[in-house]
Amino acid sequence: MTPAEFFESISSGITGCDRSLEPEVKKAIDSKTKPPGSLGMLEEIAAQASLIQKSLNPAINKKRMFVFAGDHGITDEGVSAFPQEVTQQMIANFCQGGAGINVFCRQHHISINIIDSGVKGDLKPHPLLIDKKTDHGTRNFLKEKAMTKDQAIDSIVSGMECVLEVDKTEGFEITGFGEMGIGNTTSASAVTAAVLGIPPEKTAGKGTGIDDEMLKHKIDVIKKGLDLHKPNSKDGLDILSAVGGFEIGGIAGGILAAASLSKIVVLDGLISTAGGLIAALINPNVKDYLVSGHKSVEAGHTKALSFLGLKPVLDLNFRLGEGTGAALTISLVDSACRMMTEMSTFESAGVSDK
Amino acid sequence: MTPAEFFESISSGITGCDRSLEPEVKKAIDSKTKPPGSLGMLEEIAAQASLIQKSLNPAINKKRMFVFAGDHGITDEGVSAFPQEVTQQMIANFCQGGAGINVFCRQHHISINIIDSGVKGDLKPHPLLIDKKTDHGTRNFLKEKAMTKDQAIDSIVSGMECVLEVDKTEGFEITGFGEMGIGNTTSASAVTAAVLGIPPEKTAGKGTGIDDEMLKHKIDVIKKGLDLHKPNSKDGLDILSAVGGFEIGGIAGGILAAASLSKIVVLDGLISTAGGLIAALINPNVKDYLVSGHKSVEAGHTKALSFLGLKPVLDLNFRLGEGTGAALTISLVDSACRMMTEMSTFESAGVSDK
Repeated sequence: MTPAEFFESISSGITGCDRSLEPEVKKAIDSKTKPPGSLGMLEEIAAQASLIQKSLNPAINKKRMFVFAGDHGITDEGVSAFPQEVTQQMIANFCQGGAGINVFCRQHHISINIIDSGVKGDLKPHPLLIDKKTDHGTRNFLKEKAMTKDQAIDSIVSGMECVLEVDKTEGFEITGFGEMGIGNTTSASAVTAAVLGIPPEKTAGKGTGIDDEMLKHKIDVIKKGLDLHKPNSKDGLDILSAVGGFEIGGIAGGILAAASLSKIVVLDGLISTAGGLIAALINPNVKDYLVSGHKSVEAGHTKALSFLGLKPVLDLNFRLGEGTGAALTISLVDSACRMMTEMSTFESAGVSDK
Repeated sequence: MTPAEFFESISSGITGCDRSLEPEVKKAIDSKTKPPGSLGMLEEIAAQASLIQKSLNPAINKKRMFVFAGDHGITDEGVSAFPQEVTQQMIANFCQGGAGINVFCRQHHISINIIDSGVKGDLKPHPLLIDKKTDHGTRNFLKEKAMTKDQAIDSIVSGMECVLEVDKTEGFEITGFGEMGIGNTTSASAVTAAVLGIPPEKTAGKGTGIDDEMLKHKIDVIKKGLDLHKPNSKDGLDILSAVGGFEIGGIAGGILAAASLSKIVVLDGLISTAGGLIAALINPNVKDYLVSGHKSVEAGHTKALSFLGLKPVLDLNFRLGEGTGAALTISLVDSACRMMTEMSTFESAGVSDK
């Protein structure tokens, strides 16, 4: 099978959730010893998890975090507060277990993999690191497309392979998608603007911490890039190759594969959600499997979530990425599933209903 | 020592946090491998936990949830969607481990106690249940004060004793305060209105799920109760005895004792926060130890939190109580502490700063 055929076979194999179970799920939730609706958003997540797992007792036994990493040619334009070498330094930090994402994954017993989707330098092998390098960083999208269409497919297929492989060998019921890549808020803001058809002023933010002047420059860079390539807002591959990143492609592929396996998928911030946008353009059925993690400080994030029909679960003013918001949200999805499986009913506990 | 003397000795022994550590704490947080401020509210919680524990490595080893229960004479006025017997039935459910609070406490390894502060009936002993009954339910505050001043002190002292005793025998670094008591949103809304000096329309909500007409009636009942007793808005004991509940007094006492031991205290919804208001009137220094759990759907909750200088951490549209929002927030406070203790610094990880 060629990469394009593999891409097609996984993408087309995603079906939406069977909604005929909904009344039974609602009844099960309302039978629990609590006033109906009183666990708010957790009840909505519990319903979604039940539909995804086709069970009134959805369960999360194994949790998995995939952190896709890539470098960006657009950093040549001075769009980030940190130097490009930080991508590799942070990957080393992830492998050593010292980053924010490691801390939260350890806390919540989430197994982690780091994927080199397209980091500039060559990385030393490590047990947590999966080598899926499409290229040594994307091109500068002010001068040419960030990647070829074949590379776009390759990055997506690589993400699919990671998820399918880890599911085969270790298994999981829920997965979060995080990222690392200096310059990638610029790419993700461009992707978001292209998909939503709104100007980059509304999707770009201060990333790792640039000032007002640099933000103006960043918006200008995105605008010029989109003007140059004019990607088709309905075509995920076209947008990914024009202004995307290898890690964004990897995330899109990971999401498509996870949805094809009926896993619960938790998004993280702007970049992770940009991967979600690309995946949803490729097959809108993925939306049924998506849970929004947190609400990022980044301007375009909430708009991207709305486009996907999602409401953020956490709002802690995060703007770190890596999957940190997703990791904390995975714990809340677990809470929702435990509510379904462990909470007694009015009948079983002998509690009077109203 | 008389109860009044014991109350006085614990209450007056609470000192505010030493703020001179703040610059050192900020420096430690900013040295972690993340853009400064990018973990948002978790960084604020990490700073607070550091000040409370007087350490740059705040740690949570043992977590404890106290669920105070009591009945309310005001239920005679038809203010709740559920019958009063549900208080006892839910306590049995807590003891059997089947309620929402049990599920979330198990998930996050939070040990739990249920306290009978003033349930109407007599309860069967259970290892999780602490008998601190002040009386068999409060009086109907439309006819007389909910409790005498001695009973108000007794309920607070009982809460203090629970916390001091459990700390002595088992120890904990963080505690949440939840509750159970049919009718207690009416009492808590009255307490909140009295402390904040605002009309009950702004503090009363639909509780376990009453309709618009019953809500109007509930507001009317609170208004009449406050008009009848005219409690002094600066006097916690006066408000508690006029319109409070034994579980609200227990929570206030628990908070005061936990603050006196320099523990991190996580509030839950409207009723738990009403206990926080009473505690803060008794000694405003408790505020330094309080973390807001979630933002309740109940109208008065966010206003009560603001009065205490708190911002809600979670906003999941909860209105269950029991401590459920606090239990989930305890996990986030743990995340914040782990960030301080486990995350590498730019220097230790060899990551370039901006």
